[in-house]
Amino acid sequence: MQTLPDALVRLIGELVRLPGIGPRSAERIALHVVNSDPAGVESLSTALTEARARVGGCQVCGALTEEQPCRLCASPARDASVVCVVEWPVDVVSLERSGTFKGRYHVLGGKLSPLNGVGPEDLRIDSLVDRTRSGDVRELILALGSDVEGEATSHYLARLLGRDGLRVTRLAQGLPVGSGLEYADELTLSRAIEGRRDVPPDSKSGPAEGT
Amino acid sequence: MQTLPDALVRLIGELVRLPGIGPRSAERIALHVVNSDPAGVESLSTALTEARARVGGCQVCGALTEEQPCRLCASPARDASVVCVVEWPVDVVSLERSGTFKGRYHVLGGKLSPLNGVGPEDLRIDSLVDRTRSGDVRELILALGSDVEGEATSHYLARLLGRDGLRVTRLAQGLPVGSGLEYADELTLSRAIEGRRDVPPDSKSGPAEGT
Repeated sequence: MQTLPDALVRLIGELVRLPGIGPRSAERIALHVVNSDPAGVESLSTALTEARARVGGCQVCGALTEEQPCRLCASPARDASVVCVVEWPVDVVSLERSGTFKGRYHVLGGKLSPLNGVGPEDLRIDSLVDRTRSGDVRELILALGSDVEGEATSHYLARLLGRDGLRVTRLAQGLPVGSGLEYADELTLSRAIEGRRDVPPDSKSGPAEGT
Repeated sequence: MQTLPDALVRLIGELVRLPGIGPRSAERIALHVVNSDPAGVESLSTALTEARARVGGCQVCGALTEEQPCRLCASPARDASVVCVVEWPVDVVSLERSGTFKGRYHVLGGKLSPLNGVGPEDLRIDSLVDRTRSGDVRELILALGSDVEGEATSHYLARLLGRDGLRVTRLAQGLPVGSGLEYADELTLSRAIEGRRDVPPDSKSGPAEGT
């Protein structure tokens, strides 16, 4: 006999579709929900539909936003001459968290992947071309994944967008901070050697700033 | 600057209140939600409020149910002469999953805890008294936790409900199945020795069935 009420089984079925939620955690959450204050459940339910309804892509850069354009595109404090190109809206969140980058973003919405039928026309490349041709942009940082498709997309964009007066760069590859050589694969180590940096003689701690 | 849109921050705030969801998983789920099909999000949101609205305690046994009485109380296949007393509705789910018990349940809604101000009047003890006095009940299995408060509640119930013709039992205490002696604490080991069972000479694998 099925022990759990139907409404609970349905809720568990919905919860397991969320990332990182297995059947046991879904059941635990569902049992918590039916024992919770109804107002709290209502407020979670509303937060879900409202987040989906209100949050969308910025028309300029493609980052997640409730306003048009997004706060990053609207902020006069951000350097409009440097545009960082990423695959997904989530990547903007990660980079902002690192706190290093003070320019603008451009979200492609994926990377070129002929095997999965993703061509240039499926990505936000046209609007990137428009933005870089407007003339204000001096540097384009390609912050795409370092897998084969990410690399191919970087090369495609560099060839497409390269012009006099536009510097096209990409993220450094090397050892993750805090990790030892024994955990790095051969390719990462070979990139780390190729991209090695000078250590000035008066350096006290850690690697030197780039030249 | 806050990178995430307000609606997303609110959703993350609601999600971290669920059991087993930390800030990172909440963010991962929230980002998944805003990138999902709106119909799927709507259906999760509805499942949440419906589960909370429809699922309640059975008026007879207190287990989670959408119908009154619940399927377990309504089923003629379940033995009404044996009632298993548990603390929480979730305990019914766990016991049903074990598949061993074929009687009825009674959910107390907690255990006696003078320090937390939980007395007999705060638990579903009156209705348990009524059920056991109806005469059909021959055995009461006290399936409460084996902590101090659970033990105290078991003793209280045994004294309150004990009468001629009513057998009052409690769950066996001993080694968890699949665990070695090195992981068991002293009290568990001492209960396991006190409650030891005969191994018949012709037993082939595992401990014998109880007598």
